[in-house]
Amino acid sequence: MQTILQSKTKQIKMSTDGVFTIIGEKINPTGRKKLAAALQEGNMDYVRELAKKQIDAGADILDVNVGVPGIDDVALLPKVVKMLAEEFDIPLCIDTPNPKALAAAMSFAPGRVLVNSVNGEEASLQAVLPVVKEYNAAVIGLVMDEDGISSDPQKRFALAGKIIERAAKLGIATEDVVIDPLVLTVGADSNAGKVTLKTIELVHNEFGVNINLGASNVSFGLPARDIINVAFLGLAISVGATCAITDPVKYTQGIRAIDLLLGRDAYAGRYIKYFRQHPPEEKPVK
Amino acid sequence: MQTILQSKTKQIKMSTDGVFTIIGEKINPTGRKKLAAALQEGNMDYVRELAKKQIDAGADILDVNVGVPGIDDVALLPKVVKMLAEEFDIPLCIDTPNPKALAAAMSFAPGRVLVNSVNGEEASLQAVLPVVKEYNAAVIGLVMDEDGISSDPQKRFALAGKIIERAAKLGIATEDVVIDPLVLTVGADSNAGKVTLKTIELVHNEFGVNINLGASNVSFGLPARDIINVAFLGLAISVGATCAITDPVKYTQGIRAIDLLLGRDAYAGRYIKYFRQHPPEEKPVK
Repeated sequence: MQTILQSKTKQIKMSTDGVFTIIGEKINPTGRKKLAAALQEGNMDYVRELAKKQIDAGADILDVNVGVPGIDDVALLPKVVKMLAEEFDIPLCIDTPNPKALAAAMSFAPGRVLVNSVNGEEASLQAVLPVVKEYNAAVIGLVMDEDGISSDPQKRFALAGKIIERAAKLGIATEDVVIDPLVLTVGADSNAGKVTLKTIELVHNEFGVNINLGASNVSFGLPARDIINVAFLGLAISVGATCAITDPVKYTQGIRAIDLLLGRDAYAGRYIKYFRQHPPEEKPVK
Repeated sequence: MQTILQSKTKQIKMSTDGVFTIIGEKINPTGRKKLAAALQEGNMDYVRELAKKQIDAGADILDVNVGVPGIDDVALLPKVVKMLAEEFDIPLCIDTPNPKALAAAMSFAPGRVLVNSVNGEEASLQAVLPVVKEYNAAVIGLVMDEDGISSDPQKRFALAGKIIERAAKLGIATEDVVIDPLVLTVGADSNAGKVTLKTIELVHNEFGVNINLGASNVSFGLPARDIINVAFLGLAISVGATCAITDPVKYTQGIRAIDLLLGRDAYAGRYIKYFRQHPPEEKPVK
C-alpha cells in the first residue's frame, strides 16, 4: 500500500513494501530553546538551517511544528510553511493540534502534505478530517481517544480501525491514513515497547496501512538512548512499521542498515552512498 | 523450550521465551594475531584476560576455539578448556571442526557444554553427534551440507530438520539442538540478511528450538558495522533468534535494549544495571 506525498516537483511514496520513510522531527520547538526563541522573534534562519541539515541527512519529509507558548500559530504556521515550500523541494508534514492553524497553513503547501495528526477523540475526528479531505492530504492517526492512551494493544488497534473508518466516510482513502501506534517510554513502563510492537503487528495484519513511529520517545530517561532507538526501529520495522518521525542526523544510518538487512537495498547501494556523503567522524586516539 | 548448560555451579537456561543468551566469541584466534601468538607460545594469560573481559561485559557462555595453523588442537583444546573450567564458573561452548579435539576436551569441562558445531554433512553428523550424546552435551547445528550454504531459506530449513532428526535418532533431545541459520555478509549479497531472517522464521515456527546467530558476519566489509549488527540483532530476535556468538563488550548493551523493548526486563532493571557496571565513556569535547 502506498501513501503518496508531493512537494513542488518531488513525489514521495511511503510504502508498506519498499524502503523506510524518514520524517525529520527537528522543526519543533518542544525542548528546543534555540528554535523557540527564533520563532518568537520571527527569525527564519534557524528553521532554514534545520531544514537543510535534515534534508542533507536523508529526510524524505519534514515535520513542521511551531507550537510555542504565547505565539499565535494561526499566523506563524502558514508563514513557516510558505517559506519552507518556497525554498525547499520536499513534502511537508504539518504538525499542529490546532485545526485553524492547520487550515490556514494548508494552502501554502504545494503538492500533497501529511497532516500530523488526528486521533480517536470525537472533537479531533470532526475538526481535522474535513480539512484533510478538503486539501486532499494524507493524515497520521494516533491511536488514543477521550480515555487517553490504552496499554491494551487490542484497544489501540480498535482505535486505528475507528480512525480509518471515519476517514473513509468522508472519502479519505485508507492508504491516506498512516497509523501511529504510539510509543511510550520503557523507562516508565517496561511493557511499553511490547505494547507498541503488538499494536503494529495487529494494525499491519488487519489493515496493511503505512505505520508511523515517534521513535525516540521509547528511550526517554534511559542511558545510551541511541542504541535503544535503533534496536526499537529494527523490532518495529520487522513487524510492520514503515516510517518514523525521527532525527535523520542520528538515525538515517540505522534505518539504511535495516533496509539493507531486509533485502531492500540492492548491492548495498543506498547504504554505501549514505556513508560516502556522511563519512564517519574520526575517533579520538586514546 | 530450554537448552540447559552448566558450569561448576552455574546453570544457564537458553530459552525461547526468556532473555537473550550471549556467547562470548573472543577466545578464537581467527583474525586475532595476539591470541594466535599467545596460543602458539602456550601462554594462557591472554586467554584468561579475554575470558574475564567477556564475563564482565555480560557473556553467559564462553566460546572456546584454539584453531591456529601448525598447532595440534587435540593437545591444546583440552588444556585451554581445563584452565577455563578451573578458573571461571561459566558454561563453555567448545568450538572445533575436529571431533578428536572435541572428544579430548569434553572430559575437562564440568557440567554441561554446548558443542560448536555439527552440520548437515554426513561426515559431520556421524563424527560429532555421538560425542555430543556420550557427554550429554547440547549442540549447535549449522544449516549447511555437502552442497555448501544454500541461498534458499527452505533448503536451510530442511537441513535444520535433518540435524534435529539425526540427533533424535541418537537420543539427543530436540531442545539440545540449537540451530544456527547462518549469516552471510550483506556487503557481498544484499539478500543475505533476508535469507537468514526467513530461515529463522521457518525454523522458529516449525521446531520452536533455540536459534543462534553468528551475528557479526552480516556487516563484514561495510562501514559502521556496529549499527548494522545491532539492527540485525533486533530483526533476528523479533523473528525467533534466542542467542548469539558475538562480542559482549560491543553488543551486550544493544541486546539488553532489545530485551527491554520486548518486555523481558521488568523496571528496566537489567538494562540499568548494565550501565551502572559499564558507565558510558565520556565523549570528547569538540
